[in-house]
Amino acid sequence: MQRPATKFNKEKLLINKAKLDEILKQRNMVIQSYEIYGGIAGLYDMGPLGCALKQNILQFWRKHFTTYENFFEVEGPILTPKCVLAASGHTAKFSDYMVKDLKNGCCYRADHLLKTFYENKMEDPATSAEQKAVYDAEMKLVDNLTPEELSAAIKRNGIKAPDTGNDLSEPLAFNLMFATDIGPAGDLKAFLRPETAQGIFTMFKRNLEFNGGKVPFGVTQIGNVFRNEIAPRNGLLRVREFTLAEIEYFVLPDKKTHPNFSDVENLSVQLYPRELQLEDKEAEYITLGKAVNDGIINSQLLAYFMGRTFKFLTELGIPTEHIRFRQHLKTEMAHYARDCWDAEIRLSYGWVECVGHADRGDFDLSNHARCSKVDQSVFIAYDEPKEVKEVTLSFNKGVMGKKYKKDSQKLFAYAAGLDEAAKEAVAKEVEETGMWKVTVDGINFEIEKANITIKIGTKKVYGDNIIPNVIEPSFGVGRVLTAVLEHSFWVREDNEAKSVLSIPASIAPVKVGLFPLLTKPEFNNKVAEIEKICKNGFLSFKSNTTAVAIGKKYAQADEAGIPFDVTVDYTSLSDNTVTLRDRDTTKQIRIPIDKLVETVHALTQLHPTTTFEKLMTIYPVEEVKEN
Amino acid sequence: MQRPATKFNKEKLLINKAKLDEILKQRNMVIQSYEIYGGIAGLYDMGPLGCALKQNILQFWRKHFTTYENFFEVEGPILTPKCVLAASGHTAKFSDYMVKDLKNGCCYRADHLLKTFYENKMEDPATSAEQKAVYDAEMKLVDNLTPEELSAAIKRNGIKAPDTGNDLSEPLAFNLMFATDIGPAGDLKAFLRPETAQGIFTMFKRNLEFNGGKVPFGVTQIGNVFRNEIAPRNGLLRVREFTLAEIEYFVLPDKKTHPNFSDVENLSVQLYPRELQLEDKEAEYITLGKAVNDGIINSQLLAYFMGRTFKFLTELGIPTEHIRFRQHLKTEMAHYARDCWDAEIRLSYGWVECVGHADRGDFDLSNHARCSKVDQSVFIAYDEPKEVKEVTLSFNKGVMGKKYKKDSQKLFAYAAGLDEAAKEAVAKEVEETGMWKVTVDGINFEIEKANITIKIGTKKVYGDNIIPNVIEPSFGVGRVLTAVLEHSFWVREDNEAKSVLSIPASIAPVKVGLFPLLTKPEFNNKVAEIEKICKNGFLSFKSNTTAVAIGKKYAQADEAGIPFDVTVDYTSLSDNTVTLRDRDTTKQIRIPIDKLVETVHALTQLHPTTTFEKLMTIYPVEEVKEN
Repeated sequence: MQRPATKFNKEKLLINKAKLDEILKQRNMVIQSYEIYGGIAGLYDMGPLGCALKQNILQFWRKHFTTYENFFEVEGPILTPKCVLAASGHTAKFSDYMVKDLKNGCCYRADHLLKTFYENKMEDPATSAEQKAVYDAEMKLVDNLTPEELSAAIKRNGIKAPDTGNDLSEPLAFNLMFATDIGPAGDLKAFLRPETAQGIFTMFKRNLEFNGGKVPFGVTQIGNVFRNEIAPRNGLLRVREFTLAEIEYFVLPDKKTHPNFSDVENLSVQLYPRELQLEDKEAEYITLGKAVNDGIINSQLLAYFMGRTFKFLTELGIPTEHIRFRQHLKTEMAHYARDCWDAEIRLSYGWVECVGHADRGDFDLSNHARCSKVDQSVFIAYDEPKEVKEVTLSFNKGVMGKKYKKDSQKLFAYAAGLDEAAKEAVAKEVEETGMWKVTVDGINFEIEKANITIKIGTKKVYGDNIIPNVIEPSFGVGRVLTAVLEHSFWVREDNEAKSVLSIPASIAPVKVGLFPLLTKPEFNNKVAEIEKICKNGFLSFKSNTTAVAIGKKYAQADEAGIPFDVTVDYTSLSDNTVTLRDRDTTKQIRIPIDKLVETVHALTQLHPTTTFEKLMTIYPVEEVKEN
Repeated sequence: MQRPATKFNKEKLLINKAKLDEILKQRNMVIQSYEIYGGIAGLYDMGPLGCALKQNILQFWRKHFTTYENFFEVEGPILTPKCVLAASGHTAKFSDYMVKDLKNGCCYRADHLLKTFYENKMEDPATSAEQKAVYDAEMKLVDNLTPEELSAAIKRNGIKAPDTGNDLSEPLAFNLMFATDIGPAGDLKAFLRPETAQGIFTMFKRNLEFNGGKVPFGVTQIGNVFRNEIAPRNGLLRVREFTLAEIEYFVLPDKKTHPNFSDVENLSVQLYPRELQLEDKEAEYITLGKAVNDGIINSQLLAYFMGRTFKFLTELGIPTEHIRFRQHLKTEMAHYARDCWDAEIRLSYGWVECVGHADRGDFDLSNHARCSKVDQSVFIAYDEPKEVKEVTLSFNKGVMGKKYKKDSQKLFAYAAGLDEAAKEAVAKEVEETGMWKVTVDGINFEIEKANITIKIGTKKVYGDNIIPNVIEPSFGVGRVLTAVLEHSFWVREDNEAKSVLSIPASIAPVKVGLFPLLTKPEFNNKVAEIEKICKNGFLSFKSNTTAVAIGKKYAQADEAGIPFDVTVDYTSLSDNTVTLRDRDTTKQIRIPIDKLVETVHALTQLHPTTTFEKLMTIYPVEEVKEN
């Protein structure tokens, strides 16, 4: 009764997705929100099993990243004033293009319409091989089209509103942020954050100080973010409210290395750089060390985090061959990104981006420095102070004042603001032409050599003020959770009705099922006794004392992903032992009740300290045939 | 160097609040959000120490409630469509009254203005004792005034806009919910949830099914909620975005007991029922068992949860004498509440509501059943089916059709919808008067005995459909966190500059400080070695290798609430031991480095398995004098 290997092809995991979806609904794991009111697209409820699974994944994430890496976890608000999102570029650029049905006003995403059109054409036997090649080529470019190109493609292909056949409007940019107002007067415009990152950036100075004024350091934030998707779809993959777990690692631009890179450098992972994508080749296995040496990944630091993500995903039970790192095409990158590698996981939907790894450069801190007028740099002292050339410009203020009146103040301010290179250029111009000609705020100044004094000296500089760069690993928690579910789902070969969610015990939502072999008072009382022991030991359990057969109870628990089941049988009544069943193998051992809680904790804690296989060498194995 | 008892009076905790606030800011625990943009009122950032403390409190809460009670934790969205909040009464009733400065439009909370006015008058030496008594009486009623009474009180006392002295508008109801729109067409009105409870109610049927169709069961949800406060104030106490941890316990109206009530019945707690408040008396100690027996608390179940909350708060380090349960006055209760007891904690602000315990009756489920038209009842089977009288009414449809044309359908539908009692009344009327006269939708029907057939028989009934009641303990996480901070704050008697946050080790944000005795490479290397050991053991630490003296490092760690400090000294270099210092007593022991991680985990896990006192009997105590 071994778990069979999951089938897959180049693009997709081949699982019975309809069956899995049915289980998620039936077992109350993931349900569309406000179901009794007809449901709202793009919003999901997590029932008890879904929520516990998610919480366990997050706790594991915290240990794997925040605790292990000694990062700072912070929490900022979801409500974000407009000034912050204007500085970050989100008010201007965080948009998708939509087209409207010209008669009923229904909205569609322009790129989705085009993709669906091409997909249908490719599957249509009436399409010639030649045409297919054209459609295939066009489809690959859809993500990178300008609104004009989108419009042209829609017209060229004669695409109409899919629900009515009506004509469509020109593509309109639709900002994906949810807007609201803060305060009773309604005059403070705000948005629900579209990412947690901006909260971390606006706290940067405080955390820099907390770290003794030094970089590098990492800051994490876990929380909900909001995107007003035009067309939510694919379950938890494209939703309007979802949880991100983000890391912002602040580092000097020329120090993108990591002291523990050796921990990951020998990991062999599937990389899919731009070049391979553009040549229509497949991802290739390569070690992270070689990928850095060959310049495929642009810094050791980015590669370090890719390695840590890879370890995280495999520890959640995602097999190596279903993970690849795809580099963003240049046209595809977010407005803030310098380089970006997505950890994609092969799912029933195809390859799905689950974790982004972006080098955001100094984009965000520089913009916040500019907009808030609060310096965001780190002072980096030289080992020794440096002597540098210093040019000072001073003017004959009397003469200038007479000639330019109060405009002369503009000149003085402008000159004071020039950097060293610009002042040297002024010195050179005066030297060569006997005159400095300059236009400030539309006013032309001509200053003769006699009225400007140029001193060239030196000064001591003790260090530089540098705005750090940011490396950002960003986890879509709902997508990771979907990946865990799809990759843990299988069906027993001896019985197609028996589905199993082999969620790793460490993150399984409920740790143990408690069942009486028969629904008799003496059995039920023993179950109640064990419940009390579990409660006192803070071990999560789900009892089933209904009248269904024990085999059915096991099957239900397997579908719920419960890794171990306890059964109270006749022997239990006489010697205080119970059977403990392993979900994945259905093997059973017999174990004293007073060992139960510590044993199941050891099997199921975030880093388990034993395995069921080991326990089979310690406790008697029961021969049980399930049917 | 014992911790001195915290001073307090009847109303307030007497601590150096300004000093505590300074520490919270300096140590980057709690900071106003978007500080670099000038800050936004009512929004707060949690820095690394604040966030870790909050997360630890939440994990402790999960163990204490969700895991121990075997509740279901769920997670629903923050975005809530208007229909849900219309059903719950929030769109109509979730308001505060504000008054506007008639010249500049500034908004103030009407009740706050009145309270401040009374407070100032009471402190004013010019106010006579007689006047004070009047003001005192009026102040106590402020929370319960109608808008007309608020208006009258403002006028009577001549209250003007505090910032300008301008006249004020009449009180206006201001709905506290943040509004937004879902979807690209902007036609789905929504709000940010003002409580997590509604998400639990709209999922009720799914969770009922998950629990085998049976009540009672408890559902928990932890998440952010939003209230557009007119005047945010008092740090984390009145904010615009905050975290609630809520429990909704679904139970039959006549079964409000709990099997484990004996676990809490002997707890003696301060109760402050309505009567004592109205008579201006103080809260009184009473056991929860007696309070239930005497009918002071209206159900054993409500008292059970009050007991569990009491245990939770005391385990977080809040002393018994600073906790009281205050019953809401009838005029003060939320629109959905039948009875309500707040767990209040004595803080520097006075007594502050931190946990509400409300009996919401069937208010929410009934309203959602009505508005969604989806049944929210539980079927409760009788032990034996009951025979009950059944009255059937049937009409001579031909005659009725001729007489009333298509209006007759309204009559038939109305009659079919009558309950048994109403049908019996019809039967009686026909018997006595020979006629049934009834008005349906404004149409008068007169049906003669000949045209109506009344059959009186019996039918078997197998059970009742009952809408469960809800008991709701609701925790304001920011308020609980504030209480933990205030009650853990003290100043060393030998040195006023030395403040300490004696946060219980189990929830302390960082578990151990790592310091070199001197900043020398050999000491620093040893610290780095210990850091690696901590990381691999997932133990949170904060190192300090700056050049400040060790005493200063201890003082900084004490302010950050770090419960234990490790110091690498000369002995460490020769025998691989370090000193381990206890924050609260400043006592030190010497311990081998290879025992460090497991020992500090044992001292600091959510349910610690050892104490520093015990360790002092196992490991050598170091004689150290701090100054």
